[in-house]
Amino acid sequence: MIEASKQSSSAGGEVAAATGGATQWPDDGSALAAEPLTPECTIDDFTKVDLRVARVIAAEDVPDAKKLLKLTLSLGGDHVRTVFAGIKEAYQPQDLVGRLVVCVANLAPRKMKFGLSEGMVTACGPGGKEVFLLSPDSGAVPGQRVH
Amino acid sequence: MIEASKQSSSAGGEVAAATGGATQWPDDGSALAAEPLTPECTIDDFTKVDLRVARVIAAEDVPDAKKLLKLTLSLGGDHVRTVFAGIKEAYQPQDLVGRLVVCVANLAPRKMKFGLSEGMVTACGPGGKEVFLLSPDSGAVPGQRVH
Repeated sequence: MIEASKQSSSAGGEVAAATGGATQWPDDGSALAAEPLTPECTIDDFTKVDLRVARVIAAEDVPDAKKLLKLTLSLGGDHVRTVFAGIKEAYQPQDLVGRLVVCVANLAPRKMKFGLSEGMVTACGPGGKEVFLLSPDSGAVPGQRVH
Repeated sequence: MIEASKQSSSAGGEVAAATGGATQWPDDGSALAAEPLTPECTIDDFTKVDLRVARVIAAEDVPDAKKLLKLTLSLGGDHVRTVFAGIKEAYQPQDLVGRLVVCVANLAPRKMKFGLSEGMVTACGPGGKEVFLLSPDSGAVPGQRVH
């Protein structure tokens, strides 16, 4: 019953909310406690960083690197670049091909031991096997900017 | 056949790649052309922006706003905040409750006509119905930072 999950708001609209609010999920705040928020930033700080949807068109193990996979990303058309990502323990190369990710697309290229990294793939999690890539909801296409 | 999608790389590793590379997907580069990349940024610019995984614990229409939904986000534990997001044409409030999103968590709060917005939910797409929220892969929890 839809009504069971709604309640009137003071503004006269309808509120969709889970019964019990945040307590329904085991979100205990430990992740935030482990890595506290950084100082406030401005909207200009955010727009300096150009986050883009990209498609993984190739993924390769870097045998001599403990954590790295080498990804070939497409921003659409001829816009292809190479990025090294510390996700080896969490993802198999073949599972990445074709999927969308979100990358920092205007990051200064960085020379690494294994080659030039032309951007950075975004992910969250403490590391090791606990790394989780970001992706957009279905319908997004490579090259779209994150706002 | 797994071998059909792999080829030897010059580094001796295996490359997982789609046959035909980028041409397998209709990613024509128009999104990037419509909104060209901003000038290069540094890794320090990126780390100034604190992107966090958050769970939507309530979502509400803002009747007088053409584009806005009012979201209540949890970063885990007692860390709850209100954010106004311009996603009304693309999402139904009841479809958002419980899901994970990615927000700019250290953005200076902004007083809007309808209330205080304590952060920003990230999404891509040209706007209107074509707005696509970001989320982390399964396993991520609220409060985790995006790196």
